[in-house]
Amino acid sequence: MSDHHVYKKVEIVGSSKTSIEEAIENAVAECGKSVKHMEWFEVMETRGHIVDGKVGHYQVVLKIGFRITNS
Amino acid sequence: MSDHHVYKKVEIVGSSKTSIEEAIENAVAECGKSVKHMEWFEVMETRGHIVDGKVGHYQVVLKIGFRITNS
Amino acid sequence: MSDHHVYKKVEIVGSSKTSIEEAIENAVAECGKSVKHMEWFEVMETRGHIVDGKVGHYQVVLKIGFRITNS
Amino acid sequence: MSDHHVYKKVEIVGSSKTSIEEAIENAVAECGKSVKHMEWFEVMETRGHIVDGKVGHYQVVLKIGFRITNS
Amino acid sequence: MSDHHVYKKVEIVGSSKTSIEEAIENAVAECGKSVKHMEWFEVMETRGHIVDGKVGHYQVVLKIGFRITNS
Amino acid sequence: MSDHHVYKKVEIVGSSKTSIEEAIENAVAECGKSVKHMEWFEVMETRGHIVDGKVGHYQVVLKIGFRITNS
Amino acid sequence: MSDHHVYKKVEIVGSSKTSIEEAIENAVAECGKSVKHMEWFEVMETRGHIVDGKVGHYQVVLKIGFRITNS
Amino acid sequence: MSDHHVYKKVEIVGSSKTSIEEAIENAVAECGKSVKHMEWFEVMETRGHIVDGKVGHYQVVLKIGFRITNS
Amino acid sequence: MSDHHVYKKVEIVGSSKTSIEEAIENAVAECGKSVKHMEWFEVMETRGHIVDGKVGHYQVVLKIGFRITNS
Amino acid sequence: MSDHHVYKKVEIVGSSKTSIEEAIENAVAECGKSVKHMEWFEVMETRGHIVDGKVGHYQVVLKIGFRITNS
Amino acid sequence: MSDHHVYKKVEIVGSSKTSIEEAIENAVAECGKSVKHMEWFEVMETRGHIVDGKVGHYQVVLKIGFRITNS
Amino acid sequence: MSDHHVYKKVEIVGSSKTSIEEAIENAVAECGKSVKHMEWFEVMETRGHIVDGKVGHYQVVLKIGFRITNS
Repeated sequence: MSDHHVYKKVEIVGSSKTSIEEAIENAVAECGKSVKHMEWFEVMETRGHIVDGKVGHYQVVLKIGFRITNS
Repeated sequence: MSDHHVYKKVEIVGSSKTSIEEAIENAVAECGKSVKHMEWFEVMETRGHIVDGKVGHYQVVLKIGFRITNS
Repeated sequence: MSDHHVYKKVEIVGSSKTSIEEAIENAVAECGKSVKHMEWFEVMETRGHIVDGKVGHYQVVLKIGFRITNS
Repeated sequence: MSDHHVYKKVEIVGSSKTSIEEAIENAVAECGKSVKHMEWFEVMETRGHIVDGKVGHYQVVLKIGFRITNS
Repeated sequence: MSDHHVYKKVEIVGSSKTSIEEAIENAVAECGKSVKHMEWFEVMETRGHIVDGKVGHYQVVLKIGFRITNS
Repeated sequence: MSDHHVYKKVEIVGSSKTSIEEAIENAVAECGKSVKHMEWFEVMETRGHIVDGKVGHYQVVLKIGFRITNS
Repeated sequence: MSDHHVYKKVEIVGSSKTSIEEAIENAVAECGKSVKHMEWFEVMETRGHIVDGKVGHYQVVLKIGFRITNS
Repeated sequence: MSDHHVYKKVEIVGSSKTSIEEAIENAVAECGKSVKHMEWFEVMETRGHIVDGKVGHYQVVLKIGFRITNS
Repeated sequence: MSDHHVYKKVEIVGSSKTSIEEAIENAVAECGKSVKHMEWFEVMETRGHIVDGKVGHYQVVLKIGFRITNS
Repeated sequence: MSDHHVYKKVEIVGSSKTSIEEAIENAVAECGKSVKHMEWFEVMETRGHIVDGKVGHYQVVLKIGFRITNS
Repeated sequence: MSDHHVYKKVEIVGSSKTSIEEAIENAVAECGKSVKHMEWFEVMETRGHIVDGKVGHYQVVLKIGFRITNS
Repeated sequence: MSDHHVYKKVEIVGSSKTSIEEAIENAVAECGKSVKHMEWFEVMETRGHIVDGKVGHYQVVLKIGFRITNS
């Protein structure tokens, strides 16, 4: 519509029992339920819970950027 | 519903004339009017205004994390 | 309504082919379409795309703070 | 005098045996003896001394911003 | 014993339902059960849990410095 | 025993020839040999050695948090 | 006078309704009223106020370095 | 050539007597003399020299990212 | 040749559709085409593109350290 | 005079042709000409000029803390 | 024993009246009294006390990494 | 040639068995073999290896800035 775009970033924490990548995928998938035009993510923190002396699940804090519609 | 949760963090600034803790409580209370399932907060910055040579009010910048419903 | 205010900050990326200031103005203008009571912004990052060996457009990542109505 | 203001920030460390807030108030009060037009503060660090296994006093490192007169 | 001292820093997280200061005191008191010659603390992070829309407890991440005996 | 807990964080570097996740698991497993009540980890740095032009092993610097018994 | 120089840095906030560059120039000009031998500046933060949905003015936080006379 | 790209980032400092944007353009133009496939830049620092109480020139430290040919 | 070594670090961005580890491997492999004696890498940022609501590819920004020949 | 002290920190850049330590000593000595009750310093940055392919002089950016008299 | 190692990092503050290097050596020597297999150190902060207008002693905050035996 | 200069920064790690300053000199000397017009350096990290409970050698990570010829 115009010659410039505007984006918004939201901060989402995904988790997974398996891998960092799956935690990222879970965050992106959940975010996509309410947000359109997602374009990129940035990992801010990687952490997790420990259960019985093992990694219980990974938690990845992401910023997800999406284009604001009509911008 | 699933074996993993997804959280969102929002950034809120609370203020109080009295204390840092009250500024945090004010931010959490206001945030809770529109957000459910708040689980934690992280203090990002503590600052404030000075009025007549004294602290006028404290301002605390928080990130508040909440679970996304149904995630 | 009360003796204290609560603010929210959102993270917006504006862009412009011309200048950093215009990218900021574009971000603020777009944000103002859905948010009232915007009071301040903070520049988090300045970056841009390069096209044919020249700056194609500037991208400025801002945090925009606005007062939560009735707080 | 003009349509813009200029501010200076100074870095002050206040202390208190009682609370973080009192350490901030002490820093602001002392700073106000030599500086006028103080408008805001930013907490940079919170730390303290330990005496006999208890907090002896809190030390809060602040930046205090004040308007330069006539700016 | 010598003309110089050596210190160690440990990272402790204290919590309190009441205040940031009490969370710090709790961390220092617990640390003092196993460590002697504690001399200072540095606040690294302030955060907390939210329960039923209110601050459930404050969590303060500290570094506590203590002199290594005989150094 | 009391209504508040105190935690300690230690900094551990795990390594693995295979993946970042395995390096984390290795660090947690080794730490668990001397520490009980591990509850969470935070990734501080991800790095590694290069051998013959390939990743020789991943090194992940973690902070591991555990509850201090009886706190 | 000697074979080495000593510099001091002060932290100044300039503002402008027009541009980031003018805010910097305003800070430098005001600082120059009380300080001689200014040699460099470093931008620490760029922010601003929003008025009626537009940038009201830019605020640029600078460190300004100047040589201490006779050093 | 493959289904993934590899980029390199170099750190360049551009300067200009006029504006931050021109300093960026100067850095990009100079970098383009020896590097092809430049795609983006990131501003790392903005600073400058002060001459006779005014901004002598702006210095902008950029990272410039370019695609490695054939990657 | 001498009793000390000198290393250089370059900043490389690798990408992969599959995993963070593969993005690192891709960056290291590409870098190895022009650089010898690579010894270590440090992950600076992890990010990626989102395509159709899923991770399109991971992008990992690395610093790669290599020994300068004959140093 | 009171049961608490207030300190101020100033930022000073010392230089030396010989060593980092001498640059620090030069900064402290110069600062001591106008400031009393200096108690500690913190190194913020270490840098320097290169002349004819060698270190011309070291520049050390310090914060120097001093007690405000009568506080 | 295994094909991977695990390391721990501890944070130690060494001091010296003479030099930064000696403060580092003092920290390493003291740490070596209770820890085996020390492999590397990282300087986190350099600071010191000022006595009678001169550097009284240097304080260097280090992280010291050591291999956990049998890992 | 023009009224503005462009600089490049490279990241070099120097080492020395003796001192931090010598590690810096070694890095600058080695860098000078392939780069002309070096003008300044910035210390990014100071670290080192420990051998037999003593500092084996210091490693200093520098950024070295040099003017691009003809800029």
